[in-house]
Parts: sequence; structure tokens; C-alpha cells
Amino acid sequence: MPTIVVDVMPKAELLDPQGKAVAGALGRLGVEGFSAVRIGKRFELTVDVADEKTLETVRTLADEVLSNAVIEDVVGIEVVE
Amino acid sequence: MPTIVVDVMPKAELLDPQGKAVAGALGRLGVEGFSAVRIGKRFELTVDVADEKTLETVRTLADEVLSNAVIEDVVGIEVVE
Repeated sequence: MPTIVVDVMPKAELLDPQGKAVAGALGRLGVEGFSAVRIGKRFELTVDVADEKTLETVRTLADEVLSNAVIEDVVGIEVVE
Repeated sequence: MPTIVVDVMPKAELLDPQGKAVAGALGRLGVEGFSAVRIGKRFELTVDVADEKTLETVRTLADEVLSNAVIEDVVGIEVVE
């Protein structure tokens, strides 16, 4: 069955403490060349059919259920196999 | 600066209670046509240069730092703008 992937990230203007913690850990591990890490969510929705109507429903759900518009942005919605 | 995206999902054979909760919520909201929801993580790593060496580092970090191989799979690593 087709899967629709929705990517949600913390808004760019907000601190992302989880990402900052990972970036700090990379520094302590001696890994160089990474200037920032941000951590968001990836939702995989298994759907019966991936038609335009379903995609429209997913766009609404992404904004109203899967993300919190105050602190997060929906950065991608795509159909995968 | 270029960004490398790493996608991490819970292993298919494991329960994903967070995803099950969202799938249940969709059912209660009367949204139909969704048979499963799984929730993983999306890491956005801002790098100085996105060359092959950096990508090799990211592949190692994805397996050893960003994911827990016991319960999670790295499902994608890609360079974006």
C-alpha cells in the first residue's frame, strides 16, 4: 500500500534544545564541519489509495493534527512507494 | 550552507506506540483511509561542505550516534540545499 511521508521541523526562529544537544555531542566527539543540528519528525502514513483527495486530507492533517503551528513547520509532504 | 538530512524510523517489526496513538486519533476524528502511522525522526545537519568525506562521516554518525540500531533503522541520507 502507498505511504505518504510528512516531515515536520521546529520553526527556524525557535531554539531546538534536542538538536543543540546533538550538535554539542558531535563537538565533544571531535567531529568537525557540522555547524548546526535540528531535529524534527517524520510521519509515515500508510494509505489505501494515494489520490488527490487523500493528499488533500493529509495536507489538512499535517497542519492541524501532526504539527503544532505555533512551534513547527510542515516542510514536506510526498508520496513514496 | 548545505544541509544533510538523515531520516530514522522505528524498525518495522517493533510496535510504535506514538504512531499507534496518532492512528487511533485519526480514527476517532472520523478520518478514513489510513491504515497505519509510524513516527520517526528527521535530522537536519548543517555542514560546511557536503563532499564525499562529509557524507561518509554522516553515514557513520547516522548509524552510531543519531540512531539506536537495536530499535531504529536509518532509512535515508540525502544532501539538500
